[in-house]
Amino acid sequence: MARRVAVVGGGSSGLACIKCCLDEGLQPVCFESSDDMGGLWRFKENPEADRASIYHSVIINTSKEMMCFSDFPIPAHFPNYMHNSLIMDYFRMYADHFQLTKHIRFNTKVLQVKQRSDFSQSGQWDIETENKEGKKEKHIFDAVMICIGHHCQPNLPLHDFPGIDTFKGQFFHSRDYKTPEQWRDKKVVVIGIGNSGGDIAVELSKVTKQLYLSTRRGAWILNRVGDNGLPLDMLFNRAIELLKNVLPFNFFSGLVESQLNKRFDHTLYNLKPQHRLFSQHPTVNDELPNRILSGTVQVKPNVRRFQGSSVEFDDGSVVEDVDLVVFATGYRFSFPFLASQVLSVSDNKASLYKYVFPHELQRHTLAIIGLVQPLGAIMPISEMQARWATRVFKGCAKLPSVVDMMKDIQCKKKTMAQRYVSSQRHTIQVDYISYMDEIAEQVGVRPSVLRLLLTDPRMGLNVLLGPCTPYQYRLQGPGKWAGARQAILTQWERVAQPMQTRPCPAAEPHRSFLWPLMVSAAVVGVAFYINRSKLPTFLQDPTELLERIKVFMPAL
Amino acid sequence: MARRVAVVGGGSSGLACIKCCLDEGLQPVCFESSDDMGGLWRFKENPEADRASIYHSVIINTSKEMMCFSDFPIPAHFPNYMHNSLIMDYFRMYADHFQLTKHIRFNTKVLQVKQRSDFSQSGQWDIETENKEGKKEKHIFDAVMICIGHHCQPNLPLHDFPGIDTFKGQFFHSRDYKTPEQWRDKKVVVIGIGNSGGDIAVELSKVTKQLYLSTRRGAWILNRVGDNGLPLDMLFNRAIELLKNVLPFNFFSGLVESQLNKRFDHTLYNLKPQHRLFSQHPTVNDELPNRILSGTVQVKPNVRRFQGSSVEFDDGSVVEDVDLVVFATGYRFSFPFLASQVLSVSDNKASLYKYVFPHELQRHTLAIIGLVQPLGAIMPISEMQARWATRVFKGCAKLPSVVDMMKDIQCKKKTMAQRYVSSQRHTIQVDYISYMDEIAEQVGVRPSVLRLLLTDPRMGLNVLLGPCTPYQYRLQGPGKWAGARQAILTQWERVAQPMQTRPCPAAEPHRSFLWPLMVSAAVVGVAFYINRSKLPTFLQDPTELLERIKVFMPAL
Repeated sequence: MARRVAVVGGGSSGLACIKCCLDEGLQPVCFESSDDMGGLWRFKENPEADRASIYHSVIINTSKEMMCFSDFPIPAHFPNYMHNSLIMDYFRMYADHFQLTKHIRFNTKVLQVKQRSDFSQSGQWDIETENKEGKKEKHIFDAVMICIGHHCQPNLPLHDFPGIDTFKGQFFHSRDYKTPEQWRDKKVVVIGIGNSGGDIAVELSKVTKQLYLSTRRGAWILNRVGDNGLPLDMLFNRAIELLKNVLPFNFFSGLVESQLNKRFDHTLYNLKPQHRLFSQHPTVNDELPNRILSGTVQVKPNVRRFQGSSVEFDDGSVVEDVDLVVFATGYRFSFPFLASQVLSVSDNKASLYKYVFPHELQRHTLAIIGLVQPLGAIMPISEMQARWATRVFKGCAKLPSVVDMMKDIQCKKKTMAQRYVSSQRHTIQVDYISYMDEIAEQVGVRPSVLRLLLTDPRMGLNVLLGPCTPYQYRLQGPGKWAGARQAILTQWERVAQPMQTRPCPAAEPHRSFLWPLMVSAAVVGVAFYINRSKLPTFLQDPTELLERIKVFMPAL
Repeated sequence: MARRVAVVGGGSSGLACIKCCLDEGLQPVCFESSDDMGGLWRFKENPEADRASIYHSVIINTSKEMMCFSDFPIPAHFPNYMHNSLIMDYFRMYADHFQLTKHIRFNTKVLQVKQRSDFSQSGQWDIETENKEGKKEKHIFDAVMICIGHHCQPNLPLHDFPGIDTFKGQFFHSRDYKTPEQWRDKKVVVIGIGNSGGDIAVELSKVTKQLYLSTRRGAWILNRVGDNGLPLDMLFNRAIELLKNVLPFNFFSGLVESQLNKRFDHTLYNLKPQHRLFSQHPTVNDELPNRILSGTVQVKPNVRRFQGSSVEFDDGSVVEDVDLVVFATGYRFSFPFLASQVLSVSDNKASLYKYVFPHELQRHTLAIIGLVQPLGAIMPISEMQARWATRVFKGCAKLPSVVDMMKDIQCKKKTMAQRYVSSQRHTIQVDYISYMDEIAEQVGVRPSVLRLLLTDPRMGLNVLLGPCTPYQYRLQGPGKWAGARQAILTQWERVAQPMQTRPCPAAEPHRSFLWPLMVSAAVVGVAFYINRSKLPTFLQDPTELLERIKVFMPAL
């Protein structure tokens, strides 16, 4: 049985790994190359090589109730969408509360992670590290968890932009953007309409003479602020997830797209992509429509070429005297300290069983944690992966045969290829609920909605129709947390609390919290009713229906 | 008949006045105290005494099709909501096109406007001016149009804030705010949730450590970006205006408030005021909900007192170490160059017939132009007032007796007091459509919807169900403009054009433009249907109904 576990990286995934190791009685040693925890979320004035780097104003796109670790709710008074500095505060609280910091060796870089010669028996790893003073050290570990994220190496495809070598303005990758001030009254082109591109474009447009946002494919734009002002990600639930799985992909996409178009017509704003909403990692941006309508952000097609200080776009239009180009062109990931026979990565593609385990290893003592791009929050996903990995290390959970794992990997690749626009952005996409349930199933902590409905109807309804908050995965099974039920019952109170900063005489805070439940139920009903003639006959027979549903949601 | 007209002030109202004088064959001389036109809209790095002053990022809250002068559409490629620099560009185009600039005497301040001794016969005015070099000059004019706006004198009610003299941080009125940079990582309190307060709070919150937005009453928050991404002010039309006049005030307010709450629940966000939506001048702010949900803007109640560097609020909460307080507490207006027997102002209240004519003058040769706070754009209103005033000067339009004018003034005061929260913000409130129609009636240019429906149904439908763009007041009567019909038929194209900056393969731009028409019609129908039992019987008899409607809309 594995005892000592190396955790590579002290970001959010690394912290979750240390915690899960301790929970399972393993001995974690976390190697963090910098002098502090937090990884991506720790703002630094100057970007550092091989580390993630964020801009000053970054606010996370997932709400606090959806992004927290499953047994450690974010303080009630924290805002729903947290600034990076608050996310750091939360991580520090988490580390303090579970006494994680003493397991971290700061300023220690991992140079190599190599199977020991007796790996097939021991499953052990040789790890070489180097500290700040250049002192190298060798270690032996029973297992390794790699938590280096996937935002360390900028993807800067300059070869796709002819004439960039002649460009007289400044250009850099979005990771090098920090604050807008110095670009006041300048002309700036931002390339890429992902979350960084959208955020940076909006922020710069407040000061620039003109901001151009170049996008090849266009994008569907989501809001943080959902209907009635509730966090958007809390309006999604298991009932809607079920609907999503039952309804045809194009039909369901169309339903949600028409909602998005009610906010602003993506065609009118010339942002409408040719692909469906769920075929691209979503861009969340509350302010973009207003910036486009006021012309301070001008949407442009792909850049055809640069020439001197001018930028020519694919439609032949030219913008002269451009001062800055920001390449918000995403990231690549790789594992330079791992031999390629352990895990090879090309074009952001890696063969991992459920995005965690290199399937071909003889012993499953290596796990990659947090190498997913979820439609939802990543922290609880990393935590769930860590719960699974530690149980696999201990032998409490078993992996299937190599052949079965390979089949699962191929199947996932095929599904992703069918659904998503082909792009190196879309190699590690997962849907929050279905992926969490999938891993939870492995750990034995997937909530049983049906059983809950029968034994604890209030909780059952919350789990089915409420937001799929991470606490749901602490209700039962290994790692069960006594506070989980209460955390679920009070989650909407924690949504409201940070805004209770001005006594409002007419306050009726509870009315609004009922509606996601009611709307979800109504949506399911109406969608079924509308499509009753198009749907297979079994959907009209309750008994058969229940059987079929169990195929999708075995835990029911 | 008046021949020479003095126009005091070369802002947007002043420009419209010069143009209208020229249209009516009068000789305008515009006195502008600064060296350029544009008034409020001309950004200057440093605020100047007795002049309006805006911050760098100001974008107007009314859309280009609603804010333009009625016979001079804003260029199609201009964005729908214009930055102050583009508004200046538009004013310059207007001035160039109608050759207005030569009638402006820049750097010339008006010191005094006084009735001549033979005023009761001549209606003439003595005007004393002073140029930049201090040279004074006396002039005689047949009529005077005063266009100095109502944003020159900041309202800074320091006496309402005990301890402000002990405050160790900096404080200033919103007019002195220019850019956010210097407040990076500081703590700032903005007092007042009007349009300036909201804008400045949002902008500062991008850089501050924490931004507190203090509001005594709360507010209903509107969006620039309306449903489907169309400019909000273009979704209002004569049909909805009719509905607003027919339905009980509270019922109609409730309808629109529930729409606003769908965007974000004003109770949950602790912004909900105790008054109705239409009882306060609206605050337009697309970004505030997102800033509140992310906690970067914290809503607070009224400030109780200052003490050193701390600010105590009415709920007893205290914020320490405040670096800056911005008083977004509005403006006062006065006419220091006018004798008080001509026009007296106290607490932002002035007795003016339809907000234009001092009713007690023996001769109506003085008009105040642009002294209104509309729910809508002010430029077309100033222009309409100027069209009326010039026709009154010429004798083509007559004013009623002093008694009748007094009655009208009293009636308006009473209506305003009933509807609005008592505040010096609400002394010159007008609703765009009803006020425009009221003045247009005086000029003889109010569009006849019924006649249009019969003679030019397409135009009739546009006028009834489309946005009430200013071109509607150039379709007929004095000042008729041949281009008005075409301008109305192409208004939605000008909305779409600035966004056509990226070819969008799936473009179906016309579908979206039909919906305001359809929705309006549906709303009228449904509202009547729902309330059919509660409504008086005449509403069920079409003939009687039409007769009654004519009472509300005589032009039908």
